[in-house]
Amino acid sequence: MRRIGVLTSGGDAPGMNAALRAVVRTALIYDLEIIGVRWGYRGLIKGDFSPLDRRCVSNIIHQGGTILGTARSREFETKKGRAQALAAVCQAGLEGLVLIGGEGTFHGGDLLMKEGDFPVVGVPGTIDNDCYGTDYTIGFDTAVNTALEAIDRIRDTATSHNRLFFVEVMGRHTGFIALESGIAGGAEEVLIPEDPIGIDELCRRLQTSFRGGKKSSIVVVAETGQPGDSFRIAREVKERIGLDSRVCVLGHIQRGGVPTARDRVLASHLGAAAVEALKDGRWGFMVGECRGEITHVPLRDTWRKKKLPPPSFEALARLLSG
Amino acid sequence: MRRIGVLTSGGDAPGMNAALRAVVRTALIYDLEIIGVRWGYRGLIKGDFSPLDRRCVSNIIHQGGTILGTARSREFETKKGRAQALAAVCQAGLEGLVLIGGEGTFHGGDLLMKEGDFPVVGVPGTIDNDCYGTDYTIGFDTAVNTALEAIDRIRDTATSHNRLFFVEVMGRHTGFIALESGIAGGAEEVLIPEDPIGIDELCRRLQTSFRGGKKSSIVVVAETGQPGDSFRIAREVKERIGLDSRVCVLGHIQRGGVPTARDRVLASHLGAAAVEALKDGRWGFMVGECRGEITHVPLRDTWRKKKLPPPSFEALARLLSG
Amino acid sequence: MRRIGVLTSGGDAPGMNAALRAVVRTALIYDLEIIGVRWGYRGLIKGDFSPLDRRCVSNIIHQGGTILGTARSREFETKKGRAQALAAVCQAGLEGLVLIGGEGTFHGGDLLMKEGDFPVVGVPGTIDNDCYGTDYTIGFDTAVNTALEAIDRIRDTATSHNRLFFVEVMGRHTGFIALESGIAGGAEEVLIPEDPIGIDELCRRLQTSFRGGKKSSIVVVAETGQPGDSFRIAREVKERIGLDSRVCVLGHIQRGGVPTARDRVLASHLGAAAVEALKDGRWGFMVGECRGEITHVPLRDTWRKKKLPPPSFEALARLLSG
Amino acid sequence: MRRIGVLTSGGDAPGMNAALRAVVRTALIYDLEIIGVRWGYRGLIKGDFSPLDRRCVSNIIHQGGTILGTARSREFETKKGRAQALAAVCQAGLEGLVLIGGEGTFHGGDLLMKEGDFPVVGVPGTIDNDCYGTDYTIGFDTAVNTALEAIDRIRDTATSHNRLFFVEVMGRHTGFIALESGIAGGAEEVLIPEDPIGIDELCRRLQTSFRGGKKSSIVVVAETGQPGDSFRIAREVKERIGLDSRVCVLGHIQRGGVPTARDRVLASHLGAAAVEALKDGRWGFMVGECRGEITHVPLRDTWRKKKLPPPSFEALARLLSG
Repeated sequence: MRRIGVLTSGGDAPGMNAALRAVVRTALIYDLEIIGVRWGYRGLIKGDFSPLDRRCVSNIIHQGGTILGTARSREFETKKGRAQALAAVCQAGLEGLVLIGGEGTFHGGDLLMKEGDFPVVGVPGTIDNDCYGTDYTIGFDTAVNTALEAIDRIRDTATSHNRLFFVEVMGRHTGFIALESGIAGGAEEVLIPEDPIGIDELCRRLQTSFRGGKKSSIVVVAETGQPGDSFRIAREVKERIGLDSRVCVLGHIQRGGVPTARDRVLASHLGAAAVEALKDGRWGFMVGECRGEITHVPLRDTWRKKKLPPPSFEALARLLSG
Repeated sequence: MRRIGVLTSGGDAPGMNAALRAVVRTALIYDLEIIGVRWGYRGLIKGDFSPLDRRCVSNIIHQGGTILGTARSREFETKKGRAQALAAVCQAGLEGLVLIGGEGTFHGGDLLMKEGDFPVVGVPGTIDNDCYGTDYTIGFDTAVNTALEAIDRIRDTATSHNRLFFVEVMGRHTGFIALESGIAGGAEEVLIPEDPIGIDELCRRLQTSFRGGKKSSIVVVAETGQPGDSFRIAREVKERIGLDSRVCVLGHIQRGGVPTARDRVLASHLGAAAVEALKDGRWGFMVGECRGEITHVPLRDTWRKKKLPPPSFEALARLLSG
Repeated sequence: MRRIGVLTSGGDAPGMNAALRAVVRTALIYDLEIIGVRWGYRGLIKGDFSPLDRRCVSNIIHQGGTILGTARSREFETKKGRAQALAAVCQAGLEGLVLIGGEGTFHGGDLLMKEGDFPVVGVPGTIDNDCYGTDYTIGFDTAVNTALEAIDRIRDTATSHNRLFFVEVMGRHTGFIALESGIAGGAEEVLIPEDPIGIDELCRRLQTSFRGGKKSSIVVVAETGQPGDSFRIAREVKERIGLDSRVCVLGHIQRGGVPTARDRVLASHLGAAAVEALKDGRWGFMVGECRGEITHVPLRDTWRKKKLPPPSFEALARLLSG
Repeated sequence: MRRIGVLTSGGDAPGMNAALRAVVRTALIYDLEIIGVRWGYRGLIKGDFSPLDRRCVSNIIHQGGTILGTARSREFETKKGRAQALAAVCQAGLEGLVLIGGEGTFHGGDLLMKEGDFPVVGVPGTIDNDCYGTDYTIGFDTAVNTALEAIDRIRDTATSHNRLFFVEVMGRHTGFIALESGIAGGAEEVLIPEDPIGIDELCRRLQTSFRGGKKSSIVVVAETGQPGDSFRIAREVKERIGLDSRVCVLGHIQRGGVPTARDRVLASHLGAAAVEALKDGRWGFMVGECRGEITHVPLRDTWRKKKLPPPSFEALARLLSG
């Protein structure tokens, strides 16, 4: 193997640049040429390539976003689009590809591999932590801390005003961000899609809590599907038990920002591991970290198998808020 | 004068605790007893008072919110309510009152003064910076920096995705937060109520900019009246010129958080100045800071006179984004 | 078991308050009375106790330091001192004790247990991460991020000036903070006591690097014994190879600050686990987290067995800086 | 005027990049070509120039340091060096120069102007706030907030341990950073070179305070000349009154980091004003901001006249700590 490519795809996540830096530096150490693909699969189809050297990735380890850019590509979802991508890749002499992204990215990579027999390795970069095969994804720790900072700020106001707040965090159908930021923020309730409690139960709990003397309260809500669902919840709570509240939808601020130490270290480990695997002729999987060890999980498992928050987290959230 | 009170009222603002600390410590130095009124004017009516000493305000200078609590009081808006408040105040032997808050707070104080001939001094604590008679209000600098941090994070994502973002900041009918955070965040456009440009003009500018090669863009929008108006703007932009966008409503995170140095220093200056005025038998005004000097402006001017952002700010925002 | 105590001892660490909150809330849920011991073992001897309820630990989850205080106690190092402590503990009706701290704390607890047959459980709270039996200690993640933030800041200056910087981080004879913050900060070299490279080798590497075109460089140095050793290193580098440099000793800022999400979640898990163990009649160990699972390791192992940074970390630091 | 240059010189300060962006964008708006000089006066001598366009300064408004680099130049201190610089400048067709820096920078600019009759305008960028002719310099607000964050962290530890801390901040012979961060951090004492109190008085005050029941204390010390002087102070305090303490020297972390809103807004104003002056044929001064207005002060006044902290600040520091 003499020349490999790297791209970032899907929603951007803090730490993608740190992963990219690790990919580039590790490749160079093993005397591999390393080519950056701009704007994800869209750039792959167009051949939007440029060689990367050590300097290109200097001083990016702390930058949010991704210097390669990312985009959604309808074309790549078609067989024709992927054939174009494979042609571009071959013409550029790439012999392998490191894919930094989430489920959708790996799905695309899997097809590329099957349709073109092309070597790919995935690196999990997404704030949602919803990839099976790794305990944590790159960007998750930063997103949790960003959400937590917001919760800390809102608590100042909630306490000063004796108020109920709903804080909606990201998660794409999973409760990871909600659970960790909820426990860390001392939230009174955490609503996650994996264990929906229903509006009646929520009202019952809030009522018990406020009757028991509590005067301010923060409920962390995991975004499910459409952002803004917590406005509906707040309205229903108001109608049913008369509790007034305020709603905060944190949204995209959770995607950006300077990555935490944990995310940068994880990104460095996984970026290096991806290149080492390619170099050794092993591919078709995502590199992850489980229980402190680097793992390799088949790409298709990353989205076919469902990853659930550890039950101990939910139990803990309930225990300490109770 | 031997005993004075202090309360915080209206929306909470970072730095209120720093102001409170300055009020308490300055009072004690001048051998005044100082009584804390809990939950704003509501507590004033109920006589929810407790004496404050040096220790009560130790280690609060950096805390967001207000340790005294704040609340809206319908009762205080009635003459009867205010009479009750005056009675409570007299019974407690208070000879003066420091009011930390915004327009509404000062309005209430003005009535108290007129109806009861009671000495009050205002200290401007609100994130919106909309009090006439002071260049900056306590909490504004922190709110701007919080908004700015969010804009910085969103820029990571906007740039990585080539996207248009609308970021809605607070401001209660004024563009102060939007202008300062927009200039500091390098926003492409800043929409403020003082100078509404209309949706057509906005579309025209965005179109010019995107046609000129710009690929990502951040528009900072000052909240006017109801939060969430930027969703409507985004929809109209989409309909008219086909530009897809994302919307972030920063909301209450702008109210909380650790106050900046500037807010703490301002709060310390004004808190001390308020007590010094009372002690010297001067009252009926808000203490403020204009062009670096402590000023005293009649309470009623603080809301009757309209404070506008300096024109140089708007010009600058346009110049550098242009 | 009906009544237990809790204390914090040794150097304070961010997240100790979160652990304390978890201990108190878990105890109350299991209908245990919970008594706070102020100022560590010194307070234990003096009987400086006060009961804790839910309210005492409201709004402390995000606070650095420890609301119970901590202190070093010479007296407790004597058998007589410990006998006094045991007497005080019995008099107060305590039937068990949760100890939040590090090696020294656990050493004291071990003696208390042996000399008085008194049930104790340890919770690892120290920024240094040097307790055997847990992958991470409470406070470590925050300290690493604090160090990292400083390194990010210094990199701005190092790059603007083309300069060599030595940044000394804490660690008490271990390289954990140095390694993680060094990898995350993109440091050119990380000097740790576990693998001393000597001044000659350091000079050789720096020379190679600067001759290869590098113009600025950050070397992270783990404090060994006395703070300030990096001044000596900087001097020797100057003398041997003529490279000018600046030195930063981060010191105690690494101990304070708002704890990260990870530290608060870990603290919540371990605080709850400690009380659950005591309640179940199990004691004499430290609760820890290894590979994502709660573990129980005999107190004496925590300091007798040496915990080393994973070799993969050091390899990674070298790979990516090289 | 058709083509101007811009350089950053002296110690780097957060916000220099924001100033640079404003200079470039304003120049382009007035159809001036704008040339960046790399590495300060050293680059001026060598002709290390490159043209800047809008894109060069995209996404730098939030970056610490300076993308142009800065350096000290012995050569420029000689007449011969400056003649070379003037030659390089003429050869490149520059008709004016914007100098972003502090005293030393302006001194050099003054000589350039006198010896070569060359139009220069200064923009005050230095964390120390020691330029006469502007209330605040670019970078000062960020440095104060960085120092403050460190003080907040140290207070956690100081309070948890009942300890005395000396925190040494930067300031180059001036007490601005010490005073603002000391007031904002609630420091018990602030030692500044403008009003030295001597070790005896310091000991007396600390003794009074600790005898009065205070148990922890933070003394902010302005660096004078050599960093590290607070170690000596701590030693003397220990010797004279037996008080044990810890010392933190914040050092270069105060120079870096993401600039605050205030610094970015100030930088934007002054950068634009500098170019507007040059364009209008006015030069030989530094643009500053006094009492909210843009001012122009002759370059030589910036270092010849001594700028002192407002007396009200010192009085306030004493009042509130007392």
